[in-house]
Amino acid sequence: MSVNSLKKREQEARSGKQEEKPLPTAALPASGVVDWLLFNADWLVACDPGMSRFRSGAVAIDGDRIAAVGPSGELRNKFSGRREADLSGYLLMAGLINTHTHAAMSLFRGIGDDLPLKKWLEEIIFPAENAFVNPDTVYLGTLLSALEMLRSGATTFCDGYFFEESAARAAVDAGIRAVMGQGFLDFPAPDLPDPTNFQARAEEFLSRFPTQTDRVRPSLFCHAPYTCRPETLKRIKELCRSHKILFQTHLSETRDEVDEIVKRYGLRPGMHLDALGVLDEATLCAHGIWLSQDEILSIAKSGASISHCPESAMKLGSGVAPVPDMISCGVKVGLGTDGCASNNDLDLFSEIGFAARVHKVFRKDPLACPAEQALRMATLGGASALGLENEIGSIEPGKKADLIALNLNQPHLTPMYDPVSHIVYAARGSDVRFVWVDGRQVVKDGRVLTVDEAEVMSEAKRMGDKILLSKT
Amino acid sequence: MSVNSLKKREQEARSGKQEEKPLPTAALPASGVVDWLLFNADWLVACDPGMSRFRSGAVAIDGDRIAAVGPSGELRNKFSGRREADLSGYLLMAGLINTHTHAAMSLFRGIGDDLPLKKWLEEIIFPAENAFVNPDTVYLGTLLSALEMLRSGATTFCDGYFFEESAARAAVDAGIRAVMGQGFLDFPAPDLPDPTNFQARAEEFLSRFPTQTDRVRPSLFCHAPYTCRPETLKRIKELCRSHKILFQTHLSETRDEVDEIVKRYGLRPGMHLDALGVLDEATLCAHGIWLSQDEILSIAKSGASISHCPESAMKLGSGVAPVPDMISCGVKVGLGTDGCASNNDLDLFSEIGFAARVHKVFRKDPLACPAEQALRMATLGGASALGLENEIGSIEPGKKADLIALNLNQPHLTPMYDPVSHIVYAARGSDVRFVWVDGRQVVKDGRVLTVDEAEVMSEAKRMGDKILLSKT
Repeated sequence: MSVNSLKKREQEARSGKQEEKPLPTAALPASGVVDWLLFNADWLVACDPGMSRFRSGAVAIDGDRIAAVGPSGELRNKFSGRREADLSGYLLMAGLINTHTHAAMSLFRGIGDDLPLKKWLEEIIFPAENAFVNPDTVYLGTLLSALEMLRSGATTFCDGYFFEESAARAAVDAGIRAVMGQGFLDFPAPDLPDPTNFQARAEEFLSRFPTQTDRVRPSLFCHAPYTCRPETLKRIKELCRSHKILFQTHLSETRDEVDEIVKRYGLRPGMHLDALGVLDEATLCAHGIWLSQDEILSIAKSGASISHCPESAMKLGSGVAPVPDMISCGVKVGLGTDGCASNNDLDLFSEIGFAARVHKVFRKDPLACPAEQALRMATLGGASALGLENEIGSIEPGKKADLIALNLNQPHLTPMYDPVSHIVYAARGSDVRFVWVDGRQVVKDGRVLTVDEAEVMSEAKRMGDKILLSKT
Repeated sequence: MSVNSLKKREQEARSGKQEEKPLPTAALPASGVVDWLLFNADWLVACDPGMSRFRSGAVAIDGDRIAAVGPSGELRNKFSGRREADLSGYLLMAGLINTHTHAAMSLFRGIGDDLPLKKWLEEIIFPAENAFVNPDTVYLGTLLSALEMLRSGATTFCDGYFFEESAARAAVDAGIRAVMGQGFLDFPAPDLPDPTNFQARAEEFLSRFPTQTDRVRPSLFCHAPYTCRPETLKRIKELCRSHKILFQTHLSETRDEVDEIVKRYGLRPGMHLDALGVLDEATLCAHGIWLSQDEILSIAKSGASISHCPESAMKLGSGVAPVPDMISCGVKVGLGTDGCASNNDLDLFSEIGFAARVHKVFRKDPLACPAEQALRMATLGGASALGLENEIGSIEPGKKADLIALNLNQPHLTPMYDPVSHIVYAARGSDVRFVWVDGRQVVKDGRVLTVDEAEVMSEAKRMGDKILLSKT
């Protein structure tokens, strides 16, 4: 990519535009009966490149796609819905996209806080994982996380963990959209006691992956450059290329790991990945906290993306990622919560609020990471980071109908001058009351319709009791 | 205060102890019929100096006081309640204390974000205040804020604004506990066109202050050392001393104001206040972001307290207050949200989460501001900061019955290993479903019982429309 095209991407990023491909609108109805008509929303925030917002908005849904978006009066003249929702008192917006989770780790939520990273990993997390991570607990923990994410407005998540085919089944059952990354590292793992068999495990994972819906897609996840040899990184990335799936890795979360990689390979981690040829438009790097300007430019040039996880990085004391620099260099940046062991929740509204504030205080600049930029990272920016910008991330005709509605009749959202300000600086996940994924209503009045919430929570509590007992 | 007593206070602060006075328990019943019996709470977090937490907790309330706290079985053997609440599935804890608000500014929530401080103040906030701040709007805005605070678990707030007798009426009507600070500065204000009349205005405020309940108390608030001459600061503090009420001021929120004060008086702001004699145990300073170690020691020595407002400071890009240093030097530190124009909400759970995370990342130390310390700032620490540590801030016999109950049957609070971890790192204001203030139930199933919520919100929306119209 030339400097000029980098500059163009930088301008596009600043102006909110992503690279545009035509959306598949040809087969969509322009009027008549549709599957859902959502109308009368007090505010509609489309989360499109121009971050359009208008009063009294409506959306027509045909199958799994958005057929039309516009003023409520206009759409009600053109369409009627087999099912309809009057959203008076609500704000309708695009579903949020969580670009980095370890969903099954919800079972370890709050099991060990306020510890040095090494002690936390070696004395709390690794022993708990060795004892309790199996296909059943991964299914249960991922289902619990899917409930939490749907209820707090995330319609898509991008995951990385072990036994990821079980996690994928949970995503299928919950009705959420997901990219499910099977994890690899050069140490024995719960689902791969002999790490040298990683290629066979990857192929097994891909062959077992649920195929009944393209809503849930596979991915491969190399844990990090300091836990995966160059050979592992390269061969997993090759598999991703041949299967046309997303490659994920953690990148430069701590200063120590940067020092370690420089010592081992003579290059900073971003340059090391670039030299190995694993950075391209289908590579997502989580964190990217300790990136140099050169690494940022290399990532921008490669088309790889970053998942920014401010809450987890703050809680672990890791550092503040140079996100404003990434964005001005044209890097695609999404938001992620990270796993519940280091967050300790999966509320993307909270994550948006942290992102919008932490860069301001870190740079002593109230103009850093303005509201629209923070919201974009959780919507269209996240879609781009996953390579799904043509499918999700905004309310535009032809895109998948992934939508959420927030209850505005609450003191903390009153009065309202600008809906984007409220989404970023005042809203919380619990304001979400209705959710559609793929055109299907999955949350109604704050309750998930796809699975038995009470049963999942009570199973998770039982598992928590077992885990607690094993510690004492 | 000697170095030894400072060290003692430091040790007490580290070990969670405040200076202890006996609580008024003599007249409380040890058994029999009480006004309220709250029992079966899955977890009780007393927020007392030892941060006690236990399963299956209960509280007996006699009039406005806590008569007993302990295991549910034990209390049910001793007491029966005229009214009872079975809190199975809930976490019962002390009500939160918001030590810094400008409650009426909820009417300006989100009216201007992402602007440089000077432009934001001079082009947005001051004109809006000049046009719209009057006794009626102060009453309305404060009532709206009281609803928001009660619903998100704050049972006490400490305020500063204009027409503060109107704000006090709103606090009385809402049933919340409050310390209401009439604001002063050496410029024309909406309620004091000629600032030289400040003493008469202060006396008028005190004489008009509602006296029907000691739940709502008066205070005087000098805006800041850079907006109030030494004479104003000294005379207002004298009035506070003679009326035995809290003196409030903003202190060192920005680097610029520190430079300004050093230029004017040759001293940093904390030393300037100390030299004027306005720092003592009944002085509360908001922010304290740019304090030197000498200023921290002077504040500790004086017994004055700090209201830490991390979200507002982050959003405005002001800086990160040296709170861990303050606490280790024995300064009393409470948490505050600041006003809705710079936060933009009044959710103290969110503030606790920001406090627990921002010091970790700022110091690159995962052990900075651990969960208990963050929670203490929002409970007993806040009570001490207001000089009310003998009345509120913890669930202990003899204290005022200010209590909140959080719904634990939610995915983001499942499973549960440590309730303090969940309160700090996962809970949000919307988890609060029941609230008692002064022994009176004021929130039931998430709804405020004391005022007509729908009417207040609809009035606030109408006012918001007027304010918006005036801008365009």
